[in-house]
Amino acid sequence: MFSSQIRTDLALEAHETVQNAGKDSHSPIHGVEVQERYHKKSNTQITRVFITTKNGAKAIGKPMGRYITMEAPNMAEADEDYHREISKELAHQLHYMIPDLKKEKSILVVGLGNRDVTADALGPDVIDNLCITRHILQEYGKAAYNKEHIHSISSLAPGVMAKNGMETAEIIKGVIEQTRPDIMLVIDALAARNIRRLNTTIQLTDTGILPGSGVGNHRNALTRESLGIPVIAIGVPTVVDAATIVRSALDLLGSSAYVFDPDEPGVQKTFQELNNMYVTNKDIDETIKRLSFTISEALNIAFEIS
Amino acid sequence: MFSSQIRTDLALEAHETVQNAGKDSHSPIHGVEVQERYHKKSNTQITRVFITTKNGAKAIGKPMGRYITMEAPNMAEADEDYHREISKELAHQLHYMIPDLKKEKSILVVGLGNRDVTADALGPDVIDNLCITRHILQEYGKAAYNKEHIHSISSLAPGVMAKNGMETAEIIKGVIEQTRPDIMLVIDALAARNIRRLNTTIQLTDTGILPGSGVGNHRNALTRESLGIPVIAIGVPTVVDAATIVRSALDLLGSSAYVFDPDEPGVQKTFQELNNMYVTNKDIDETIKRLSFTISEALNIAFEIS
Amino acid sequence: MFSSQIRTDLALEAHETVQNAGKDSHSPIHGVEVQERYHKKSNTQITRVFITTKNGAKAIGKPMGRYITMEAPNMAEADEDYHREISKELAHQLHYMIPDLKKEKSILVVGLGNRDVTADALGPDVIDNLCITRHILQEYGKAAYNKEHIHSISSLAPGVMAKNGMETAEIIKGVIEQTRPDIMLVIDALAARNIRRLNTTIQLTDTGILPGSGVGNHRNALTRESLGIPVIAIGVPTVVDAATIVRSALDLLGSSAYVFDPDEPGVQKTFQELNNMYVTNKDIDETIKRLSFTISEALNIAFEIS
Amino acid sequence: MFSSQIRTDLALEAHETVQNAGKDSHSPIHGVEVQERYHKKSNTQITRVFITTKNGAKAIGKPMGRYITMEAPNMAEADEDYHREISKELAHQLHYMIPDLKKEKSILVVGLGNRDVTADALGPDVIDNLCITRHILQEYGKAAYNKEHIHSISSLAPGVMAKNGMETAEIIKGVIEQTRPDIMLVIDALAARNIRRLNTTIQLTDTGILPGSGVGNHRNALTRESLGIPVIAIGVPTVVDAATIVRSALDLLGSSAYVFDPDEPGVQKTFQELNNMYVTNKDIDETIKRLSFTISEALNIAFEIS
Repeated sequence: MFSSQIRTDLALEAHETVQNAGKDSHSPIHGVEVQERYHKKSNTQITRVFITTKNGAKAIGKPMGRYITMEAPNMAEADEDYHREISKELAHQLHYMIPDLKKEKSILVVGLGNRDVTADALGPDVIDNLCITRHILQEYGKAAYNKEHIHSISSLAPGVMAKNGMETAEIIKGVIEQTRPDIMLVIDALAARNIRRLNTTIQLTDTGILPGSGVGNHRNALTRESLGIPVIAIGVPTVVDAATIVRSALDLLGSSAYVFDPDEPGVQKTFQELNNMYVTNKDIDETIKRLSFTISEALNIAFEIS
Repeated sequence: MFSSQIRTDLALEAHETVQNAGKDSHSPIHGVEVQERYHKKSNTQITRVFITTKNGAKAIGKPMGRYITMEAPNMAEADEDYHREISKELAHQLHYMIPDLKKEKSILVVGLGNRDVTADALGPDVIDNLCITRHILQEYGKAAYNKEHIHSISSLAPGVMAKNGMETAEIIKGVIEQTRPDIMLVIDALAARNIRRLNTTIQLTDTGILPGSGVGNHRNALTRESLGIPVIAIGVPTVVDAATIVRSALDLLGSSAYVFDPDEPGVQKTFQELNNMYVTNKDIDETIKRLSFTISEALNIAFEIS
Repeated sequence: MFSSQIRTDLALEAHETVQNAGKDSHSPIHGVEVQERYHKKSNTQITRVFITTKNGAKAIGKPMGRYITMEAPNMAEADEDYHREISKELAHQLHYMIPDLKKEKSILVVGLGNRDVTADALGPDVIDNLCITRHILQEYGKAAYNKEHIHSISSLAPGVMAKNGMETAEIIKGVIEQTRPDIMLVIDALAARNIRRLNTTIQLTDTGILPGSGVGNHRNALTRESLGIPVIAIGVPTVVDAATIVRSALDLLGSSAYVFDPDEPGVQKTFQELNNMYVTNKDIDETIKRLSFTISEALNIAFEIS
Repeated sequence: MFSSQIRTDLALEAHETVQNAGKDSHSPIHGVEVQERYHKKSNTQITRVFITTKNGAKAIGKPMGRYITMEAPNMAEADEDYHREISKELAHQLHYMIPDLKKEKSILVVGLGNRDVTADALGPDVIDNLCITRHILQEYGKAAYNKEHIHSISSLAPGVMAKNGMETAEIIKGVIEQTRPDIMLVIDALAARNIRRLNTTIQLTDTGILPGSGVGNHRNALTRESLGIPVIAIGVPTVVDAATIVRSALDLLGSSAYVFDPDEPGVQKTFQELNNMYVTNKDIDETIKRLSFTISEALNIAFEIS
């Protein structure tokens, strides 16, 4: 199957792909529950996908857990008031995801990615706009804030392995052991399958981040299992693999009309050339700046610091 | 014809496309001369395309004039010595293009593009590394340099219309009228058809820059006709249009195997979505930094300032 | 006199210095009128200095014209609502300065300075946040805006002579001749005498910008005389010369207690070393970002575009 | 004493200050040894200060250990060949400082400082240009390099407490526990007393980094004691405190000629205003770029990776 090679970090897209591959595209998948809701104020479609069994996980190709997708078609545009609505709705969804945020927590926010590669800088950029409290609380106590309850917020932009020579997971494990947060949030730029989702979709999940296929023993995993604390991941697709876009276009243009063999050398060469290439919108630099602000605002709202 | 919609700024690619569309792909096109040469030291394929008649221009879809393409497959990599060789060869080709550079000239170098959009920042970045002499010569005369003959070099990064509210051509015309250079060089990031040419190809031409189809009366043209002085353009393809890459992949995957109608609504919608999207390599930020240095070094060598 | 060597771009400081040098520090200077007002909402002290005669200009060392200084001690801090108030008040003062802004005008906004030198990047950064309309009006007419009256706004960040090889004035003259604006606004980073004024003071003046001593024939002047249209300058002091700060400290620490000869070689050497050095606050990078946004917002409000 | 309040991170300056304060300015200080050497090729004055006893440490106000200062007056300028010479000499001094670099080591290089504050970005910028090997060695072993012996190099730019909410030392401790390097190098921007030393001096020391007065129990210390592995610090002064420059100027201008009381309110207020202000050269942005490259090249040479 061709489509199964299409890369997506979004559970929503993985779910769609599996459904479309089936004969009856709206038959439910065992072990997968889907809830849909439309939020008017932020013009946002909210889909919650719950993968509740191992079979469900296998079918979708994503680990068991909860996935919330916010689709906000206007998010790529420069409307400040609109972005404020998105931030509020995202804060609302974070309260749903993070266990017991009513009580004071110590929260580590990690921004993954390479700040020198525009489309990958989302994570580090979110960190730059975040309100941090841990060092103030450690130095002056709660008296420094005029509030009854205040979370201890710290953050980290660990960089990328090619620059550090270390796995991101090694750095994060070390920092968690030293600073003992209750919970970790991790922000990352994702790859989507569908260009319509570029910079218009936010995914929250309590499964953390599990690089690669989701099978086996991962020293690189950023999950509750590997780190010992709950890990909530927030991601926005900022790129589509160039190979994925060609495959999608072929599908859309009428898969019935052509037949070719993915193992044929000419076909393989064509896709190999697309390797290491990605598709992005022309004003990606401006878009990333805006998105990172929207997400850091959501975190500031969710943590009630402003 | 499908391929005719493929966008390229490279005369070499336009020429290839026309040839491939013909039955005998190596038959010459009237009014178009092609010379090829391999330069060993810089591992560079140099192709000179001369469009000598109006019919040739019409056939290729590019204005009459001289086009030199340097294809250097390793140019995207980080080898300093190799980049020095490319700079030298590009300087050599500039001496061929620029009339009578043995005599002292006053040269304006213009870097087109938006410095806040990574893939479009090539022009402004080249300007940043250039050795400028005009203000020194005006203040202190030739005595400031220990040289018999010295060009007067000035530069400008005019920005983009969306930020200035002015046509780039308006700004450049005004500056030329005030400072009266003998010749203008203009650096720009281009779009290619073939991803293999991304960041590996440099095009020089004495036709200047003529936005759009190349027909009619252009207030935006940067050409000898519109500016009154010779205009040499240097360009490097840094992006491929997303629609172009899908079209190219379809062609490669076997155009005989599928048949579809480009005017069909579904097909149109597919390509519309690709609008405003481009394909680029993952380390484009680093690549642009390197390329801009290679080109500014070439200019510094060509003008004998260092 | 020592203090007379202290460099300041602020008319207010020049006026203070002259007054302090006099025996009776509050005696009026002929040809100079001063009005003071406190604006509560923005916690801003507004001082208008009118230099009305040649003798007044000579006494102060600044050209004849109107100077408005807004002193906002909290402007260096990160309070968004407060900055909005400053923007509004600055917009109000701009309406006072710019002749007949009720009628539709064509306005060119120029951001002076080097965008690669943090403390000098104020001008180019203001340009980056400005709402530009000229190109839309030229392409689509007033129909593009749902407004009865709309100014035509264009902008330019001409860069600096060391990078361009051209006087900033040459570039601006050329652009004005091509695009024929009714009026020019020019934004620049200034040098102050007093570190308390760093990043807390905005100066508006209708005298434009006259580099150097203010005497003689200037090819570099950006004034109504040299450009043929009214020129309003907006400046914020972002640096204090290192030599100035030492002189000021000496003055403050009790000039009566020490006596030394400014022409003595040891003294000269001490001050020479301070040449090319400036004093700035530690978070200048963040401060410039905030100030440039406050000023561009003021312009957007004054021009009623948002 | 006035001068004793002058802040410097350089052992060389601290030593000078103590000597100048003594009656006989060239009498040796017990527990402090000084060796001087001039290196012709890089036009560099090299001074080694050894603080060998607790009394020596107390006298100088710096911890016991070895300090090497390279003074290269032309280092602030843009001469590529010259910078190569400095890199080589610095690599040579690193071999002297780092124990037994002939054997394969695992080395962690840490770049301290805030990459968004120009004068403080030296550390993170050095990291950006460093050749990293640890991840390659872990994945492919030594076979990936055509060398008999190869160090395992990793790096970290931990950011600053105001952004992370964590002590830099907490992050570093965690990373060291996870990745177990043999030795740590730490790069930081320093404050000097003398503006002539700005961007022209490199200090190496095996005492690590001990923020504050050098007395007592430090949770923030980056030293062999606190981290359990040897810590070599490399620093370049990029700023002078504004208060320090005024004090130095007063000293130079003839301390005998004036007398004032540092505890007097007027004097205190004058110096308070200078708080949080620093003096730097006008092209600091360009200078930091150059210096960071020179230092990362020195490390690449010292570790024999290129």
